Amino acid sequence: MDVQAGLLDKLFAAGHLVETGVQGLYGRSGVFEDVIARFDALITRLGGFQDAEVLRFPPAMPRAWFERSGYLKSFPNLAGTVHAFCGNDHDHAALLECLSAGEDWTGQQQATDIVLTPAACYPLYPVIARRGPLPAEGVLFDLQSYCFRREPSMEPTRQQLFRMREYVRAGTPEQVQDFREQWMDLGQKLIGTIGLPFTVDVANDPFFGRAGRMMKATQREQALKFELLVPVNSEASPTACLSFNYHQDHFGKTWGIETATGDVAHTACVGFGLERVALALFRHHGLDVTVWPDPVREALWGAA
Amino acid sequence: MDVQAGLLDKLFAAGHLVETGVQGLYGRSGVFEDVIARFDALITRLGGFQDAEVLRFPPAMPRAWFERSGYLKSFPNLAGTVHAFCGNDHDHAALLECLSAGEDWTGQQQATDIVLTPAACYPLYPVIARRGPLPAEGVLFDLQSYCFRREPSMEPTRQQLFRMREYVRAGTPEQVQDFREQWMDLGQKLIGTIGLPFTVDVANDPFFGRAGRMMKATQREQALKFELLVPVNSEASPTACLSFNYHQDHFGKTWGIETATGDVAHTACVGFGLERVALALFRHHGLDVTVWPDPVREALWGAA
Repeated sequence: MDVQAGLLDKLFAAGHLVETGVQGLYGRSGVFEDVIARFDALITRLGGFQDAEVLRFPPAMPRAWFERSGYLKSFPNLAGTVHAFCGNDHDHAALLECLSAGEDWTGQQQATDIVLTPAACYPLYPVIARRGPLPAEGVLFDLQSYCFRREPSMEPTRQQLFRMREYVRAGTPEQVQDFREQWMDLGQKLIGTIGLPFTVDVANDPFFGRAGRMMKATQREQALKFELLVPVNSEASPTACLSFNYHQDHFGKTWGIETATGDVAHTACVGFGLERVALALFRHHGLDVTVWPDPVREALWGAA
Repeated sequence: MDVQAGLLDKLFAAGHLVETGVQGLYGRSGVFEDVIARFDALITRLGGFQDAEVLRFPPAMPRAWFERSGYLKSFPNLAGTVHAFCGNDHDHAALLECLSAGEDWTGQQQATDIVLTPAACYPLYPVIARRGPLPAEGVLFDLQSYCFRREPSMEPTRQQLFRMREYVRAGTPEQVQDFREQWMDLGQKLIGTIGLPFTVDVANDPFFGRAGRMMKATQREQALKFELLVPVNSEASPTACLSFNYHQDHFGKTWGIETATGDVAHTACVGFGLERVALALFRHHGLDVTVWPDPVREALWGAA
């Protein structure tokens, strides 16, 4: 805990993160944003050979898509639903009375048809599905968005709102496994380029509750998820900065995505935790970006 | 209505916006995002003389700040509160049963301490306040974030999640009024540079309910809000793409922001509706950015 609080406090003191009173919800300095933008651009350059289709979704998605995605089965505790006031003048007066009396005014809020995006790729699958069967070579998308996960924490690497860049591949099992293999190599090259120490290991998602235990074990046994880990908060428990995920036919079945030959499509994605990589850079290279090692500065900002 | 649906359908057909089934919630193509990024960079260049402090907040803010801001008094209907599941295995089973039976599962969701950001500057004022009295020359900030407003609509310019760039000035009444005057000029220059027709007019915010009527009238009488309007959905009711707002001492009083001489600080902001400007560009220059007029392409992408 000391190490974690230490890094967060240093980032507040340097102004790179701005405290809001809510754990895991921070403002960012211009310098912090620039580091994110430069790393994001570095991913784009590294992935440029792929000819991916760029799509950008806002930080929330339709509740109907969210419900169908299966997220609530696995991670109900992490989701954020968006609620709104639907009343009249009279209800408004009651709301303001609650508010000024310091009482809870949120009871009147009603669920809208919108849910915060839990991972950049969640709004993508229904869009792929409605375009019809995939071409023979499959498809590849380039995504980035703010994502929400309800897990308040003092670890700066565990934020409730953070940005995730992703490449998502859909096609035959062979196509998507090749894609994942390739990015497991490229991801290591990428993180090496910016001078960060890392390991790669098999991993599992934080599936909820008792039923989740079995899902974690299965996911590990089948080696469906790998993470690239960098020590940020502590040496003992390094932070997953990139992940390489093979979903098998989960999203293909859920959304009815078909390959060119009419089989259920498989999908895989590589995800880049942009805030986490920025934090790893500040942790390893220092709070002053102007004195970061030359090769790192060259990789991010180009030759001086 | 025909004109509005027409533009939205054209944007869907061209792939610049991606339909999600929820009005005002759309994906964006890479080209659309590039137009936004280029216009955003153009604002930065135009505003570069100012030496503004760059801060970026995520698309949500602390509920405590939101409650104190006064937003619920004026615009309760536009706010989006974030709710989460706080239950155990048993509650999870009940949630999944509701979901599979097609019943409402959102009743269990509880309000968190997080609310979607309604305007880019809302998280800024408490941050200014806690830094203590302003310097004699006042302060100036550069902000941008996704914002949420609960107003589903078929007009592509009225989105529930959209990006707002802002410059915010705090200081003496004279300092902030000078700032607003200056940006009313610069804003017109900016929009002229990208070849859009516009008018500037006094305006009011959409204050809620019966009490709101008086607030709208007062705001107009005192000329506290001006908008730069561009015809997008229709010639008859042009769209506010920029706004120039003088808040008087509203935020200064609310947050206890003091000038160097101990008076309540005044604030003003200029807001740029990034999606609205991008839509105006597509509406006036066509769906193919490669054939936009040369001066517009030069302003956005630099000399060819």
